[in-house]
Amino acid sequence: MQPQRDLQGLWLLLLSLFLLLFEEARAGRPLVSCPAACLCASNILSCSKQQLPNVPHSLPSYTALLDLSHNNLSRLRAEWTPTRLTHLHSLLLSHNQLNFISSEAFSPVPNLRYLDLSSNQLRTLDEFLFSELQALEVLLLYNNHIMAVDRCAFDDVVQLQKLYLSQNQISRFPLELVKEGAKLPKLTLLDLSSNKLKNLPLPDLQKLPAWIKNGLYLHNNPLHCDCELYQLFSHWQYRQLSSVMDFQEDLYCMSSKKLHNVFSLSFLNCSEYKERAWEAHLGDTLTIKCDTKQQGMTKVWVTPSNERVLDEVANSTVTVSKDGSLHFRRVQVEDGGVYTCYAMGEAFNETLSVELKVYNFTLHGHHDTLNTAYTTLVGCILSVVLVLIYLYLTPCRCWCRGVEKPSSHQGDSLSSSMLSTTPNHDPMAGGDKDDGFDRRVAFLEPAGPGQGQNGKLKPGNTLPVPEATGKGQRRMSDPESVSSVFSDTPIVV
Amino acid sequence: MQPQRDLQGLWLLLLSLFLLLFEEARAGRPLVSCPAACLCASNILSCSKQQLPNVPHSLPSYTALLDLSHNNLSRLRAEWTPTRLTHLHSLLLSHNQLNFISSEAFSPVPNLRYLDLSSNQLRTLDEFLFSELQALEVLLLYNNHIMAVDRCAFDDVVQLQKLYLSQNQISRFPLELVKEGAKLPKLTLLDLSSNKLKNLPLPDLQKLPAWIKNGLYLHNNPLHCDCELYQLFSHWQYRQLSSVMDFQEDLYCMSSKKLHNVFSLSFLNCSEYKERAWEAHLGDTLTIKCDTKQQGMTKVWVTPSNERVLDEVANSTVTVSKDGSLHFRRVQVEDGGVYTCYAMGEAFNETLSVELKVYNFTLHGHHDTLNTAYTTLVGCILSVVLVLIYLYLTPCRCWCRGVEKPSSHQGDSLSSSMLSTTPNHDPMAGGDKDDGFDRRVAFLEPAGPGQGQNGKLKPGNTLPVPEATGKGQRRMSDPESVSSVFSDTPIVV
Repeated sequence: MQPQRDLQGLWLLLLSLFLLLFEEARAGRPLVSCPAACLCASNILSCSKQQLPNVPHSLPSYTALLDLSHNNLSRLRAEWTPTRLTHLHSLLLSHNQLNFISSEAFSPVPNLRYLDLSSNQLRTLDEFLFSELQALEVLLLYNNHIMAVDRCAFDDVVQLQKLYLSQNQISRFPLELVKEGAKLPKLTLLDLSSNKLKNLPLPDLQKLPAWIKNGLYLHNNPLHCDCELYQLFSHWQYRQLSSVMDFQEDLYCMSSKKLHNVFSLSFLNCSEYKERAWEAHLGDTLTIKCDTKQQGMTKVWVTPSNERVLDEVANSTVTVSKDGSLHFRRVQVEDGGVYTCYAMGEAFNETLSVELKVYNFTLHGHHDTLNTAYTTLVGCILSVVLVLIYLYLTPCRCWCRGVEKPSSHQGDSLSSSMLSTTPNHDPMAGGDKDDGFDRRVAFLEPAGPGQGQNGKLKPGNTLPVPEATGKGQRRMSDPESVSSVFSDTPIVV
Repeated sequence: MQPQRDLQGLWLLLLSLFLLLFEEARAGRPLVSCPAACLCASNILSCSKQQLPNVPHSLPSYTALLDLSHNNLSRLRAEWTPTRLTHLHSLLLSHNQLNFISSEAFSPVPNLRYLDLSSNQLRTLDEFLFSELQALEVLLLYNNHIMAVDRCAFDDVVQLQKLYLSQNQISRFPLELVKEGAKLPKLTLLDLSSNKLKNLPLPDLQKLPAWIKNGLYLHNNPLHCDCELYQLFSHWQYRQLSSVMDFQEDLYCMSSKKLHNVFSLSFLNCSEYKERAWEAHLGDTLTIKCDTKQQGMTKVWVTPSNERVLDEVANSTVTVSKDGSLHFRRVQVEDGGVYTCYAMGEAFNETLSVELKVYNFTLHGHHDTLNTAYTTLVGCILSVVLVLIYLYLTPCRCWCRGVEKPSSHQGDSLSSSMLSTTPNHDPMAGGDKDDGFDRRVAFLEPAGPGQGQNGKLKPGNTLPVPEATGKGQRRMSDPESVSSVFSDTPIVV
């Protein structure tokens, strides 16, 4: 009976396959059409709130927007779509139960610009997870359980402009990702609010350009309370940056297990934030950036005497460079004052004022010709001279044994006192000088009874042969001899 | 008891108000914060699937994306948000029960770029409904019950690029909205699929540039079956336009209450579509567009002899104009052949071939100097001469009355024969010429016996006084006299 039942099953399978193909052919539709669970409007596929446990099979290749939000998806495997969706620019997967995304899941959608993975169960962002998405501009990952963000997770996602990581469990984020010209050069919004961040690299944060800080959201994190943090956010508040202005009541820090608002740190007795002026000295070269809240603005600088600074003027000490920075060549006292940068952008205009103080003296006084190279050269020559003096005028310290050269004694003491004046902080002359020192130390060790040494170096780079013992020559490069030089025990020959 | 209870209620109200304010002040938060039903990630407010009957009150002014999809909203009133949301760029209202949108609903969100109103209960799109949305780029209106689209609904929505109107009840759409340089100059996608469209302005559609036709989705409509429709879509198919290529199995038309696929109209016996060559005659001026599927492509033309056509070359009959069109000045027979346009775009490249046939003769034969202006001028002069002849050499039609001047008769017959040589196919000279003709007809009417007229004009621009009757002078401009000229009845004097 068994083979017959198998045959029957095969026939049924073939029949249903034939009927399916016939149905497709009759309807005249291509095999890939609008999936049953979705609503299709030309290149939009809306399949939201359908309790789908998996992504529908056979999505049309022309799909541009795929909405799978509010479903029951738990895994996004590599083969979630058998066809490459090269036209897909928006993929909405929010409000699912996603806890796994294959590292190859985004290979079939290389032109994705908008990816919504918010409100899922993701725990980690593995390295190279999004690396295929080289056109991605917006990535929504808020309201997950992300604890760790691999610093290589966003490698090659060079077009990313907005990254939302709010409401996760992140305690450490690789902030080097956002540095100007770093891995994410176009990132203008990074939302790290409502996470578990404690310590921030505050000096690095302060150095970031305003257009990055403007979109760097750090509120609702248990940050460590100190005056540096207060000063940082006070500066952001002074600059009216959105990340602080929109959420200044939610900017917390934690001290003795209590949350405090960053701007009410009275118990820390922090000094009030005050914008500092730029300081320069006579003849300095100086570049002042027009640090706007938006990228790509058109910038115009105006001098304290209300004159516009031009881009390139011969014989002018102040010019505007191509990136809109103010550039001073040989600052004069009369260059001091408040300079104003007017920046015009698509969304808004901005006005920035910068004060410049010029001191009426140069930074190095009158000895500006005494530079590092000069002192290094002098130091080197002195060292060589002293080494030579030491090698040829070494005093014989074994005067108790009778063979003495009183004339060399004087030279040794002289060279020792002079050695101490050699600039020993000179890194350039390090190698040679150390050899000289080492030899001196070896020479000054107390010699055993009956030992005597000749101060003169023999040709062939060999140590001098002790006259009394006569055990033969040893090469200077012999490792044992070197170690013996450093040991406290006398040289046994 | 009653006043006491009222007082108690007032106290309770004041107390709760005080406690609320105190709570707000204690928490240090601004009055406008994240609404209870929403999930807030910096500038994103996600309030989807919360069974909200109304938009939450007091939305933060910094909101950039507001997701209200999958709720129970039924009306969007003018005052749905008390604060202006100038940062809002995306508003998601899909999967609600919206059946009314106030004409002022979008005033508080002037910078909206993405508006999703799909899967609602909308029935009409009133005039100026979206006029406030001058930054809107994408508008999703699919899966509603829209029957009528006012031609002014999209006035001022000049940035609109994508408009989805699929799955509605639209039977007539003002297609003039999409004409090049019309009300929606940037529209590249118009989805009118799955509606009730029957008749389309086919010649107007065919004239649209390929980058509009490429995104003009018309499938799943009960279009009227005819060969013109078949030819239109066959051309789109030949050009590989997405709107036809992705949905060629869904392109239907209706004939005798039956749906047919447009490409299987065998019962209509339509001739096969064949791409036609451009035709020109010797010396013609001609412009051939490089009609690409995308806007803003870089275009390069190559001649039949595989040489690149340059932008501006003196003494060359063929050049490429600024918009990438091929421009011929005084076409020669040797200019004929297949020209190829290579277009490079951001998303893809395109190659277009155009055949040019040049006939070895000019369109107007050898009389190309006989232009419209010349014939008009000749016609005018002739008309004036004839009027003068008529005025001074009018034959006396009342010869039955006896007073005749045979000398003027000869002049009249001469003018008649000259009139017949006037080019009567000249549209420019119509007005004057017709007068001449009409008068000629009047002249050739059989005159009554014994009629006669004086051909000489008296000073004072008056008609000559008939000698026999002496009924007094009549002014030349007398309307009655003019009408009498045109009438069939003889002039009674």
